[in-house]
This record gives sequence, structure tokens and C-alpha cells, in this order.
Amino acid sequence: MPGPPRITLDDVARRAGVSTATASRALGDHPHVAAATRARVREAAEELDYVASPEATRLAGGPTGRVAVLVPHPSRWFFGELLEGLEAALRAADLDLVLFRVGGPEERAAFFARLPARRKVDAVVVLAFAVDEIEHARLASLGVDVVAAGGRVASYPSVGVDDHVAGRQAMDHLIHLGHRRIGMIAVEDVGRLAPDPDGRTSAWRAALDDAGIPPDDDLVVTVPWGGEGGADGMARLLGLRSPPTAVFAHDDETALGAIRTLRRAGLRVPEDLSVIGVDDHPLAALTDLTTVAQPVRAQGRRAGELVVAGLRGELADGVPPAELLPTRLVLRGTTSPPGAPR
Amino acid sequence: MPGPPRITLDDVARRAGVSTATASRALGDHPHVAAATRARVREAAEELDYVASPEATRLAGGPTGRVAVLVPHPSRWFFGELLEGLEAALRAADLDLVLFRVGGPEERAAFFARLPARRKVDAVVVLAFAVDEIEHARLASLGVDVVAAGGRVASYPSVGVDDHVAGRQAMDHLIHLGHRRIGMIAVEDVGRLAPDPDGRTSAWRAALDDAGIPPDDDLVVTVPWGGEGGADGMARLLGLRSPPTAVFAHDDETALGAIRTLRRAGLRVPEDLSVIGVDDHPLAALTDLTTVAQPVRAQGRRAGELVVAGLRGELADGVPPAELLPTRLVLRGTTSPPGAPR
Repeated sequence: MPGPPRITLDDVARRAGVSTATASRALGDHPHVAAATRARVREAAEELDYVASPEATRLAGGPTGRVAVLVPHPSRWFFGELLEGLEAALRAADLDLVLFRVGGPEERAAFFARLPARRKVDAVVVLAFAVDEIEHARLASLGVDVVAAGGRVASYPSVGVDDHVAGRQAMDHLIHLGHRRIGMIAVEDVGRLAPDPDGRTSAWRAALDDAGIPPDDDLVVTVPWGGEGGADGMARLLGLRSPPTAVFAHDDETALGAIRTLRRAGLRVPEDLSVIGVDDHPLAALTDLTTVAQPVRAQGRRAGELVVAGLRGELADGVPPAELLPTRLVLRGTTSPPGAPR
Repeated sequence: MPGPPRITLDDVARRAGVSTATASRALGDHPHVAAATRARVREAAEELDYVASPEATRLAGGPTGRVAVLVPHPSRWFFGELLEGLEAALRAADLDLVLFRVGGPEERAAFFARLPARRKVDAVVVLAFAVDEIEHARLASLGVDVVAAGGRVASYPSVGVDDHVAGRQAMDHLIHLGHRRIGMIAVEDVGRLAPDPDGRTSAWRAALDDAGIPPDDDLVVTVPWGGEGGADGMARLLGLRSPPTAVFAHDDETALGAIRTLRRAGLRVPEDLSVIGVDDHPLAALTDLTTVAQPVRAQGRRAGELVVAGLRGELADGVPPAELLPTRLVLRGTTSPPGAPR
């Protein structure tokens, strides 16, 4: 005969108005939970006659002082900058950063398959890649907070930039210069979510619409992330019957690849064709690349601060914060009005 | 009245012909120690009537499954590549990579000052920075193996490239092209040891000597690491009464900075001045930079394998291995004979 429905930690959390992870920590005597939060959760547990399951007790065990950081490509500048910022924020709170590379599809599958059996961590940070439903469930099973840096991931609290705004800054600059035939080199990066791939491409379309320029879909090419992809994308745009006079590349490394193709084709930048990227990669300054700068290290640092706030029970429950840091146009030498005199 | 000198773990290790760390693990029932090694160490301990000190017992505690990796600059390509390789090797052995940034002098001092109080790890990997005597002693106090990647550090087992050979590959190429007045942009990176800063500069001198060209010390400028440094260094070389016809830059990022200065000065590369770097950074291919390629990710991977071998007690004791991976000249478009016709 089934008894009454078992009271779960979720019920306690809901009654106390906190997340399940916070409730777990509060009942587990985790030192970083605010006293008021702890009291509220205990009260809710008593009111509900909650008895912790063995699993919940395990999850609620003492803090490990470790935060797992999932990184698709540690050697790329963008992820390295996120890591630097994150490490600084976690270290300031005396937390260790445990690095996990989750690169290709197979690596990811293997990583997430054994995730629940992994050594414990106090929180997880996902660096700018899309998490599917199965992965989301795996992360949830850890019973700890998950925070995203470098873009929005699932419904986790996140720190990123507004890719649509960044794209508009790039596109509006080209349009203001007088360009009407503007190409877009979009990137497809397996498993990479952020910077939001749609945000920048939607900005291309919206900017043209606002300027009364009919968007020509032939002018949008999608390539694998990176310099080689950018070089290929530019070659495809040059092969059009009517090539663009300016190109908005998804990021600086893609833009630098596009410029290599232009140089090999004997075309001058910006006299024959303007190019703009996004990031303000250190090599953008060196190569005089016009770009839209985003503060990457700051995104990592701020995400680390969210982790620390979460562990202290100081994150507001309910709608998770999606913080957006500002981007800005950086004018350099790869953009000019179209048909500038030779 | 003092008793007889206390037998220490060092004595046991010496008698067993293993390192102190291995002896510690063998007595601590660490699962990754070869049975023969364990037997040898126990025998030595019994013969010497060794009684473990409380500290040694603590150090010899069970494995944590964690390896600390000390990284000066995670966002730089070189260190990111080392991390990628290292993570792959450690993960294959089910070891977690705990990342510690040890950047500027103050950060380093703070990090090493509290090192002994840190959470335990099974081993430490030092990524390409010089360790001073105090830091060396701190690391030794952890009682675990230390391995270096990206260059030789202290007397730790290490994986790197031969910087003198890499420098000779670059210099001999320029000399074969007919250059006689060759500049060198060396870098000074606080706390960064490897790639061995002296190895490349000594190659500059040795290559000139071997070619019967008197080295002119005015042609060697030393700048902070990075593109801006390279740009400054090139400007200094252009300010000489008799500027060089070719420049060997310490690394690709420095070389790209040098090329920016040349472009701004209205000089053509390679027609007016040849430039070569070291690394084969992904942007070297994109910018058509001639360089000497080094396998960075492989250095990280191999260092991870040394860590695993050490934990299994499979590292030969005595002289620590200093493995050198091969470098190779990659010919691209920034070098040509001097005075090539315009």
C-alpha cells in the first residue's frame, strides 16, 4: 500500500523560496549559507516533516572548495580570457578551479555520461557552449549551482554580452560608411553556443532592414570557427556574381582569415573591401582590424562572483540573472567608405 | 640528551633507490605504486627502523585524484595549448586538473606563501616559468612529484623543445637567404622561463659566428613579451644608423608586432625586410608568417604522461628526464633574399 507522497528536497526548497541547491547546502551545514537562509530552510523542512534521503545527505555534504569549469577549447583566446577572469574570482574566495575540457561530441558524451560518478564539486561553470537536455539533467543531478560565462546557456545564471547589440554596432558602422552590399561570415562551432550565433546574424538582417536595404541571403555564408573558416567564407563571397563591398565577420579570428583571402586575391583592405570583426583580440590591434570589443576576462570574473554568491546563499532565487556587459566599436584601419579612391 | 639521528623518509628513499615522493606513496599504500617498488621501499623502511612522522603520514595519505597545474598566463595561446594537451593526458588517467594562475610577482608570492596549507594534490605541473629557490622549497614541502611542461624548470622532469636548435633553424634560414645584417627581438617575460630565453638569443650569436659574420650587439633588442613589444622592438631596430635586412623574433606574436611597425613605416615584408618567428601560432598561417613550428599541445600531453608515470612509480629515479620534442622550419611569405627587386 503506497504511503503518502514522500516530501522531497524540492518541496522544502519551494516552501523556503530558495533553489534546491541552496536548500541542500542549508540543511548540510555548508558554511557559506547566510544564517537567515539556513533558518528559513530548516523551518520549511520542519514544517514539512522532511527527512533527507541518503542521496540528498551526500549531496549536502561539506564543501569541497572546488568548482568544476567546463571548457570547449582552452587554447582559444576567448576561453583563455574567460578562464583568467574566473580563476581570479574563485581564488579570491579560496575556491579551486578544476578544468574539464569538453571539446568534440564524443568527448562531451563521455564526460557527461560519467558526470554523476565524478568527484564532488561545490558548483559548475559552463563556458559558452550549448547544453542539451540530457547534459542539463546530468548537471542537475549534481545538486549544485551551475553558472554560465561567455553567453547564455540553458536557464543558468549567466554573464555575457548582447550579441545582437554587438552585431548592430558592427553593421551600423558599415552602413554609416555608405556600404549597401554587406556580407556576413557566420560561424558554426559544434557545441559552441555563445557568443550567441543567431544574435550576430540577426543583427545583420535587422540593420539592413532598418536602413531600407533588402537583405540578400547569398551574402551570408556559414563556416567552421577560426581563421581557415574565415578565409573560406571570404572566398565564397568573392565568388558571388556581385560580391559585397564590406564584410561583417563573426569574430576577429574569422575576420583575419577573410583578410588573408583578400590579400591573396590582390584586393586591398579597406580600399577594395572593408572588414570588421568582434572581440578585440590582441592581434586585432596588431593587424589594425576594426572590431567590436567585448570584455571577455570581465565576463569570467563576474561569473566567478556569481558562483561565490550562490555558495553563500546570496543569489536571489526565481529568475536567474542574465548579466550583459557592454560592447563598443573600435575604429581601426580595415573599414572605409566603399569605392574609396585607389 | 639527544638520541641517535632520526631516520627520515629521505633515508628510506635513498636506501630503496627511489625519490622521496615515491617512498612516501609506497608507504602510504597509494594504489598507483608498482608492487615491486612498494616492496623495496617497505624493506628499506624496515631495515632502517623507520617510523613515519605525522607529517609524512599526512603526505602519504590516499590519492586525491587531483593534479595542480601552475600557469602564468592561461589566455596566451602557448599556455592554452599546453593545458589542452595536459588535460587530455590527465583525464585519460582519471586525474582532475586544478588550475592555478601564477601571473605577476605579487600573485606568485601570495600563491607560494600559502602553498603548504593548500588542499592536497597528487602532483604538480609547472608550465614554463622559472621557479626560484624559495618556490622550489615550497613545492618540495608538498611531498609530491613536480613536472615541467613547455621548457626546463629547475631540476624537475620536463618536456619542451630545444630553443637553441629552434633559434638555429630560424637564423640559418635567414643566413642561407643571404642576409648578413640580422636583428634579434628577444623577449623578457617576468617569471617566464621557457621557451628558454637564452637559447634563442644564443642561437642568434652562434649562427652568425658559424657563418663568419661578426655579431653586432646593437642588433639585439629585448622587449616585453607580446605584439606591442615586438612593435616597439622593430621600431628600435629601424632607428639604428644601419638597420637590419632581416629580423628573428622570439615568437610569432612578437613577429606580428614587428610586421605592424614595418607596415606603418611603409616598408614591405619581405621585399624590404624579412621577418621570422617561432611557434607556428594559428595566426602565423593566416598572416603568411615564416616561422619555426614547435609542438606545444604535445608537450603538455607528454608532461601529463610523465605525471601519470610518476604516480604509478614508473619514473626512473636519478637524473630526471628532460624530453625535447622536435621543431621545424615552416616556410611562408615573410622571408626572402635581401634587397629583392621591388
